[in-house]
Amino acid sequence: MKSITEYLWFNTTRHREFINFTDKAQDLVKRSGIAEGFLLASAMHITAGVYVNDAEDGLIANIEEWLEQLAPYRSDYRHHATGESNGDAHLKSLLVHHEVIVPITNGKLDLGPWQQIYYAEFDGQRKKRVILKALGE
Amino acid sequence: MKSITEYLWFNTTRHREFINFTDKAQDLVKRSGIAEGFLLASAMHITAGVYVNDAEDGLIANIEEWLEQLAPYRSDYRHHATGESNGDAHLKSLLVHHEVIVPITNGKLDLGPWQQIYYAEFDGQRKKRVILKALGE
Amino acid sequence: MKSITEYLWFNTTRHREFINFTDKAQDLVKRSGIAEGFLLASAMHITAGVYVNDAEDGLIANIEEWLEQLAPYRSDYRHHATGESNGDAHLKSLLVHHEVIVPITNGKLDLGPWQQIYYAEFDGQRKKRVILKALGE
Repeated sequence: MKSITEYLWFNTTRHREFINFTDKAQDLVKRSGIAEGFLLASAMHITAGVYVNDAEDGLIANIEEWLEQLAPYRSDYRHHATGESNGDAHLKSLLVHHEVIVPITNGKLDLGPWQQIYYAEFDGQRKKRVILKALGE
Repeated sequence: MKSITEYLWFNTTRHREFINFTDKAQDLVKRSGIAEGFLLASAMHITAGVYVNDAEDGLIANIEEWLEQLAPYRSDYRHHATGESNGDAHLKSLLVHHEVIVPITNGKLDLGPWQQIYYAEFDGQRKKRVILKALGE
Repeated sequence: MKSITEYLWFNTTRHREFINFTDKAQDLVKRSGIAEGFLLASAMHITAGVYVNDAEDGLIANIEEWLEQLAPYRSDYRHHATGESNGDAHLKSLLVHHEVIVPITNGKLDLGPWQQIYYAEFDGQRKKRVILKALGE
């Protein structure tokens, strides 16, 4: 069995941001020498997500607006009694989920034609991490 | 380590459809010879989902109605500037998620008594794929 | 390759409950002898979830209220024609998802500083299970 682990750091300039890191994941898989396996891409924070979907700017704007509708910013979340103001970011993270598993076949990420891997920052402007870990042979 | 990979093709007759493919996944695991491992079942499209829940027709109708409430069809998604009309299908896919990992124990999918694996088509009437990949020993 | 499988039983006193089982998962990984791998933690029921987020009581109350808003209890779900009354619990389970994969690095769960693994019970007061299965080397 082979394994490889790396951490991607993100420090977004905006409070919310969507970053496509498919190429970095693909590159890691190449360097791993793994032909058949799984890649885990997982946000190490509770106010960020990782998801697979389309690299289309209009859709990304739709996703951001939709998340704000379903898990809106509010000043009065109970969580804010701790001094935080990011209750909505936790809920948005739960909604899109914080991780994906991508299959590796013949030494490459086995994604469909439009599938891209995104980091979704919901409480940015600070250093945050995604773990990439591939396992296989 | 053992691995096996197969692709299931779906071409639904309706625009939206929910298809139980647990038996096909169970059969793949049997043929793989894997006793202990993980099965990944992942839609290779960004307008479809894969989830685990109950094989009960009333519930499936509830899931469809509920997804339509939370991620409704609308003509005015920004994504539609590309010529597409399936913005809602992307959001529905994010909501139910596009993949599951199912444990394999003693050579079988280790599912609870009511757990069934579903393909959720949100923009059908065309050929689409799910990848099944099992890893283990 | 090494693998280990265990089942956690939960029998909550309340109808809905959120239980942090990170320590039990961490302990399993230690006993497995796995240095690099993946841990799957997956509810074996269709009315419960497993997710990773913050161990903060205010936030947990927010999550419960938010899930009730997005997937409310209603008496008239179609699913209830079967005699059940837990339609909302199925939808809540779909929303938070029933499983997570946690990376194992250097013999420990490789979680971010605030990440904790939770069992989310949406239809409790009965015995229910979570499977923990770790794979790696």
